[in-house]
Amino acid sequence: MERPGGRTARVRRAVMVATEDVIVEHGPAGIDLGDVARRAGVGRATVYRRWRTASGLIADLLADMAERSEPRARTGRLETDLLANARLVQRTLNSRRQGPIFRAVIAASTTDPECARALHDFYRTRLRTWAPCVVEAIDRGEAPPGTDPVAVITAVSAPLYYRLLLSDQRLDRRAVEQAVAVTLAGVRAGAFVVEC
Amino acid sequence: MERPGGRTARVRRAVMVATEDVIVEHGPAGIDLGDVARRAGVGRATVYRRWRTASGLIADLLADMAERSEPRARTGRLETDLLANARLVQRTLNSRRQGPIFRAVIAASTTDPECARALHDFYRTRLRTWAPCVVEAIDRGEAPPGTDPVAVITAVSAPLYYRLLLSDQRLDRRAVEQAVAVTLAGVRAGAFVVEC
Repeated sequence: MERPGGRTARVRRAVMVATEDVIVEHGPAGIDLGDVARRAGVGRATVYRRWRTASGLIADLLADMAERSEPRARTGRLETDLLANARLVQRTLNSRRQGPIFRAVIAASTTDPECARALHDFYRTRLRTWAPCVVEAIDRGEAPPGTDPVAVITAVSAPLYYRLLLSDQRLDRRAVEQAVAVTLAGVRAGAFVVEC
Repeated sequence: MERPGGRTARVRRAVMVATEDVIVEHGPAGIDLGDVARRAGVGRATVYRRWRTASGLIADLLADMAERSEPRARTGRLETDLLANARLVQRTLNSRRQGPIFRAVIAASTTDPECARALHDFYRTRLRTWAPCVVEAIDRGEAPPGTDPVAVITAVSAPLYYRLLLSDQRLDRRAVEQAVAVTLAGVRAGAFVVEC
């Protein structure tokens, strides 16, 4: 059993930061376990034993990010909850550190199945964390019964990722507000209602 | 001046098919100009002179795909036009040949600026090709004046690309219909109206 903040946790934190540094500098293809160990000030044997491969490091980095990601909003209104979610995506993807990490990991996932699994898990966790915003909106009568919570949260993020990956347009305030307005219109029109 | 179907056009076609084959088999990082020349039955010097680098081949492949992509729908109704667009995206991304090519090129674009420029041009062309569907809908009174045509077409594609790149979910009929229904609700609610 390990105490939080114990040695194992400290080693993991140092290795995660070093992995991020390497991805930002060289991309995920540039991850070398010996290099990560050196930067983290940790024995090579520890890194090889615990993470095995570059994909193992990326997978654990995404798990770490999911654990440390911000809690969902609880503003009491669907529109402002969705806006908080969109702004979190915007902040993350525009961040000089996290933006390149996400682009790199998304790219690596197109060819590396272990990395893809970790990425899908990350987004599943993120979507499930925010889904209760929609469940509560249904309870408050802001969304029709049968609205699919995960689909609603996905719809807010999707145009922001489209911009990041397929265009040279900035993730600006207008993009964020439009993503929320369109999703909200879809909710009200029943476009997210799942038929049984 | 070159006739369509002339020798230069035939060479380009052969080189484009060979480039696609290599990407499907090895990914864009596996593109070797000599290998492409051999598969295309074209002299190495021709390929090096005309396309210079692997990124040059990818850029021309995207330009070729943009030129050869299907014309926009003209069904006379916004909903069915958007559905035709969503189905074209679905068909392309689910295709055993084009799906891997797009994933690979999107991945390569995260690190290669020339490839990114070609990808952004490709999507700009695609969006502009379909934008008149929305312009006509405004003229018919199906969409409010000031609706941003490119933003509407983007909104239909975005959730489909999100599925492809960030989830392990299939691009099925429900995803296509939901993307259209949500976008259409956004149009009707004025969520795509650009303020001057």
